[in-house]
Amino acid sequence: MNQAKIAMIGLGVMGKSMVLNLLDRGFNVAGYDINLDNRNRANQEAKSLAKLHGKGLFVTLGSLTQLLASLETPRIIALSVPAGEVVDSVIEELIEAGLEAQDIVIDTGNSLWTDSERRERQYQGKLRFFSTAVSGGEVGARIGPSLMASGDESAWQYVKPFWLAIAAKVDSQGMPVGQFEQGEPCAAYLGPAGAGHYVKMVHNGIEYADMQLICEAYHFMSEVLQLTPVQIGQVFSRWNQGALNSYLMEISAEILQASDPVSGKPFVDVVLDKAEQKGTGLWSSVNALQMGVPAPTIAQAVFARAQSGQKAMRLRAARAFKQQRNHADNIDLETALSNLHDTLFCAKLTVYAQGFDLMKTTSDTEGWALDFANIAKIWRAGCIIRANFLQDITQAYEANPELENLLLAERFIEQIELKSSGWRASTVQAVLHGVPMPAVTSTLSYFDSLCCEVLPANLLQAQRDYFGAHSYSRVDDIEQHRYHLTWSDEKIIQVRV
Amino acid sequence: MNQAKIAMIGLGVMGKSMVLNLLDRGFNVAGYDINLDNRNRANQEAKSLAKLHGKGLFVTLGSLTQLLASLETPRIIALSVPAGEVVDSVIEELIEAGLEAQDIVIDTGNSLWTDSERRERQYQGKLRFFSTAVSGGEVGARIGPSLMASGDESAWQYVKPFWLAIAAKVDSQGMPVGQFEQGEPCAAYLGPAGAGHYVKMVHNGIEYADMQLICEAYHFMSEVLQLTPVQIGQVFSRWNQGALNSYLMEISAEILQASDPVSGKPFVDVVLDKAEQKGTGLWSSVNALQMGVPAPTIAQAVFARAQSGQKAMRLRAARAFKQQRNHADNIDLETALSNLHDTLFCAKLTVYAQGFDLMKTTSDTEGWALDFANIAKIWRAGCIIRANFLQDITQAYEANPELENLLLAERFIEQIELKSSGWRASTVQAVLHGVPMPAVTSTLSYFDSLCCEVLPANLLQAQRDYFGAHSYSRVDDIEQHRYHLTWSDEKIIQVRV
Repeated sequence: MNQAKIAMIGLGVMGKSMVLNLLDRGFNVAGYDINLDNRNRANQEAKSLAKLHGKGLFVTLGSLTQLLASLETPRIIALSVPAGEVVDSVIEELIEAGLEAQDIVIDTGNSLWTDSERRERQYQGKLRFFSTAVSGGEVGARIGPSLMASGDESAWQYVKPFWLAIAAKVDSQGMPVGQFEQGEPCAAYLGPAGAGHYVKMVHNGIEYADMQLICEAYHFMSEVLQLTPVQIGQVFSRWNQGALNSYLMEISAEILQASDPVSGKPFVDVVLDKAEQKGTGLWSSVNALQMGVPAPTIAQAVFARAQSGQKAMRLRAARAFKQQRNHADNIDLETALSNLHDTLFCAKLTVYAQGFDLMKTTSDTEGWALDFANIAKIWRAGCIIRANFLQDITQAYEANPELENLLLAERFIEQIELKSSGWRASTVQAVLHGVPMPAVTSTLSYFDSLCCEVLPANLLQAQRDYFGAHSYSRVDDIEQHRYHLTWSDEKIIQVRV
Repeated sequence: MNQAKIAMIGLGVMGKSMVLNLLDRGFNVAGYDINLDNRNRANQEAKSLAKLHGKGLFVTLGSLTQLLASLETPRIIALSVPAGEVVDSVIEELIEAGLEAQDIVIDTGNSLWTDSERRERQYQGKLRFFSTAVSGGEVGARIGPSLMASGDESAWQYVKPFWLAIAAKVDSQGMPVGQFEQGEPCAAYLGPAGAGHYVKMVHNGIEYADMQLICEAYHFMSEVLQLTPVQIGQVFSRWNQGALNSYLMEISAEILQASDPVSGKPFVDVVLDKAEQKGTGLWSSVNALQMGVPAPTIAQAVFARAQSGQKAMRLRAARAFKQQRNHADNIDLETALSNLHDTLFCAKLTVYAQGFDLMKTTSDTEGWALDFANIAKIWRAGCIIRANFLQDITQAYEANPELENLLLAERFIEQIELKSSGWRASTVQAVLHGVPMPAVTSTLSYFDSLCCEVLPANLLQAQRDYFGAHSYSRVDDIEQHRYHLTWSDEKIIQVRV
């Protein structure tokens, strides 16, 4: 092969899948991996694929120098290596091997967004640093991921043809189409280097919360409505045809209806209820806390996983407490299911509202000018949170790019007013039955707080001023001076500070 | 003055207050501040105090060299300087000025606990690094703070007499006593250098949650029960006599009954409802997320402050939504208040359970062997969260130092079983009225999750395995192997991974 169009360094699961995806589109690709097994496996799979297509070539090379020599200029080199120091050491090796200032290096790993920002600065003048967050796991990477690109803007025109080609596609209704069908690609340039990985981080935060909401709905149906896993799976399957359509709903329906191949029991009943995590939900929560943006439901989802991990403690607590829960025996099933459906809708929308508010705040702080319609668009297919719903969000931001909070989009105000009584009803039933719904209740608190003209933070500021002299503002002082109240001598005196 | 017993570097509000407190106890103190105004103010106040007492001398010195010369050896030098780099630069200056390896430097600022850990390592052999977190604000520092000491253990015998003397004291019932009365001091050595500031950080996390709970109770009484601020203050005042006794309850009662000196309106009604923060609640929340310990209510309290800050957005939302809330008109006031009282009790206990679980996990990880009875003891007076209640917590940990979760202490199980129906009832009323109680609902979710033998995390793990091949454990495999399910070919196959 002479003159490959693009190279992939790192041929593990994700790197290899993206290579095969590129070959599907007819591109010539060069590859490199320090691990010989990875190299051979990629070679083998690429060969069968090339035979099938009769186009698209793949060759793995023995050194980075050879790799550079095999590429057209400016060279486009994607990295699919572990996040962290490895990214920098590979880039340093590339520079030593003769990389030039016009060449483009794309980090496609799960990097922390602040590392991407640092790298853009660090490699300025040495190469064009670009980053692309890839969502959709192995299958997504292979047949069509959602690609959140960012970095040196001059590089985008070179990267764009590849990413648009391999990305997942949607039809004019915003629905995912098959791998080789025409459609609008779920790939976009979002801004400077940190932006892509940042948006992906918030995507994962929303994913954590959405998964937790679905789990709470399952728990509710199981405990309050006494449905079996199969019945619950059927409900989810039905809901997946409507407003709650999403990939996560779809796979939950499938999982719940599956039998364990070993015991024949419902599959979920044999899975240990200790949730694990890889950290991106935590990153989102920490970032929300640090940015001062209310994203409580994302944090609740992370904490719910942590609490599930305390299994031994939970077993002892379950034995210790003989709770008197008010079991309402005469619950009407259809009404309860309809309420729960509306609960999921409102709660999910609220989670998105939190996530988009977080992105908006960071975008303003970092000067990224993120395009939220565009972000909703590229989440419509390929990624884990893909859902019909994102078409509505896209339209909400297209109608008003400056939308302050997703819940305040006209199309959603109406829906929430229709559905909020169900949201409250399910929450009440869960509370009375002792079925924990930490994510659902936190979305409702968020919504109710949002709708409060006056929150009790007035008392809180007064407390802070009382014990710490932290001062307060007054509602009747438009100039917003700061005041302190002194409580000495039985007399209250206000001073301006 | 010849041979001062202890020196204070930094004579701002906190440093000066601690100096005056030391003088009250008859100690000779040397002082230093780069700011001449601070120095003069401290000098002046110390002079009047010495005149009053006829004992205890204070002298400010013009250089660190003079300061070192004025001290008995080993020298004991407390720092009350801004947290961060200033601490290190002052220590470096002290070393240059002739500090010796046996001398003791105590950081009493609001340092991050990991900085204290780093400093203990960094200054080993150059000085004995010690740290003490001080709680209680200006007044506490002046008449009796809660002191969380940690660091070089050999230094404690030298520091101890000063800290036991100036700390707040409690009587045999665990109740705070007056400044010059005899009692058990709220000061203790907790462990290596990071421990004191870590415990203080969690103290502040609990403080955030406790303040938020009180604010939610106020909001509930105002919106659901239609009580006036004065009436609510009276309820708090009554509650402060019983199981809910606490400093925060006491000052809230006082604040709510106060009139604005300017307008004559209830004082809280003129305070702007935008809560601010200084970051320690955030630190606690981030730490809980990172440690994987469920402390959702602390995070909810931080997010509630953030959401209160979005005042303009809230005003627009309040106008946009014409919510149909189910106003239950025939609420019995006494029943509702009794339920709310029980809600606060259970919620508060749950917040402490989260905080102590967090400390236990970190203590195990860091090898600190924290003594939780001791920690509860020194929080009984002097600090912001001081409350009768901490006497019960002390006794719970004395009865079982290995207590896994505070909610599982026998004395509390019984109380929660008595009070949990009120907890649920208030939550239901709040949900139906659209009054946000994010902290209360998150405590209830935490409790209900704790009591769940099986949480829906089984579905969550199955989802993770489905889309990301993250694998799962089985409930029927005691060896806890990991499995992965493949869904291809219409057939489900389980493989061990």
